Amino acid sequence: MNIKNVSKALLKRLPVYLDYIKSLPDHTENISSTKMAKALDLGDVLVRKDLAKISDGGRRKLGYVREELIKDIEEFLDVNSTTCAIIVGAGKLGQALLDYNGFEKSGLHILAGFDIKPAAERTGGGKPIYTVDRMESFCRSHAVAIGVITVPAEYAQQVCDHLVFCGVEAIWNFSPAHLTVPGHVVLQNENLAVSMTALKMQMKNRKNKS
Amino acid sequence: MNIKNVSKALLKRLPVYLDYIKSLPDHTENISSTKMAKALDLGDVLVRKDLAKISDGGRRKLGYVREELIKDIEEFLDVNSTTCAIIVGAGKLGQALLDYNGFEKSGLHILAGFDIKPAAERTGGGKPIYTVDRMESFCRSHAVAIGVITVPAEYAQQVCDHLVFCGVEAIWNFSPAHLTVPGHVVLQNENLAVSMTALKMQMKNRKNKS
Repeated sequence: MNIKNVSKALLKRLPVYLDYIKSLPDHTENISSTKMAKALDLGDVLVRKDLAKISDGGRRKLGYVREELIKDIEEFLDVNSTTCAIIVGAGKLGQALLDYNGFEKSGLHILAGFDIKPAAERTGGGKPIYTVDRMESFCRSHAVAIGVITVPAEYAQQVCDHLVFCGVEAIWNFSPAHLTVPGHVVLQNENLAVSMTALKMQMKNRKNKS
Repeated sequence: MNIKNVSKALLKRLPVYLDYIKSLPDHTENISSTKMAKALDLGDVLVRKDLAKISDGGRRKLGYVREELIKDIEEFLDVNSTTCAIIVGAGKLGQALLDYNGFEKSGLHILAGFDIKPAAERTGGGKPIYTVDRMESFCRSHAVAIGVITVPAEYAQQVCDHLVFCGVEAIWNFSPAHLTVPGHVVLQNENLAVSMTALKMQMKNRKNKS
């Protein structure tokens, strides 16, 4: 499979598909792109094309064999390889993410948290929290590829620059700051206030329609 | 402005635009759709069309007057109206969201947390945490419109059903469960594992390209 021909948008949809297919009742043997499109509120044609790109198991009328499709997507997403991450900013959100147990099944290991002044040595779930001066040596010795930022907005760019200096290849930004990264680094923003405003607007939209 | 003609996708992009425009340096007087498209990694034509739908202030070559565009988007997004929310599941993530101070500027007030067995009466930030049996009366007396779910996946549907019963119009789901809601209720999923897998894939994609 040539990953170069795959769009960023598809890379974002594949984990959603995988998650949905896995969540189906155990007895489900087949799944059609039409049913998936409906359940996930996506276009029928879009889902069909997406799946055709990563699996050749689709059969007219029957759809995909569920187990095969899971295998195809997992292989494509390379879930069996391990990627290491750290979190900078060990406040409540940082600690919640450190202890979140849904990442490991995707091959993502959040190894530790870093803070300018750690409130504790470990999270409730037992993940270590270190002072930021240990970040560089930790990142280099553990081949940390992803840096998660959960510090206040005013410190986010500084933390981001330091993570890039420490060699991370991707930044997952939970602060509301707009960050600048060099071209070789991937940036993903998780702006919760933006998410919630969008939800509020959809709610009003739904009300106006009904 | 007729909100009925606006797509769900645009409703999701507008808060991103607003957030970006506000984050520009104070001395910025004008902003072009081209510059915005580049900064936000979106299509030029898309941004131009989006902005034309909610503001008539765009001028050839000059772009938009920043302050006017902020005002137009804010009016459209109705940021001055207040929407009330509660969070069910007062673990670390729930408490982090309760104390997150970025929601209020968008007119969103998270009033309280609910838990089957609250570990404390209040969060560090002073937000109250109640037992779930008080949820219905609280929702009705405070006109709660949004329910945020931060419980483990196995309890999420049950909590979701109860929130709908309590009269909420929108569900913001942080659990990895796929929830079913009635047609009049808006559902937004914030699946962090999916987000992180997408980030990991983009990182590999970038590596293959370089």
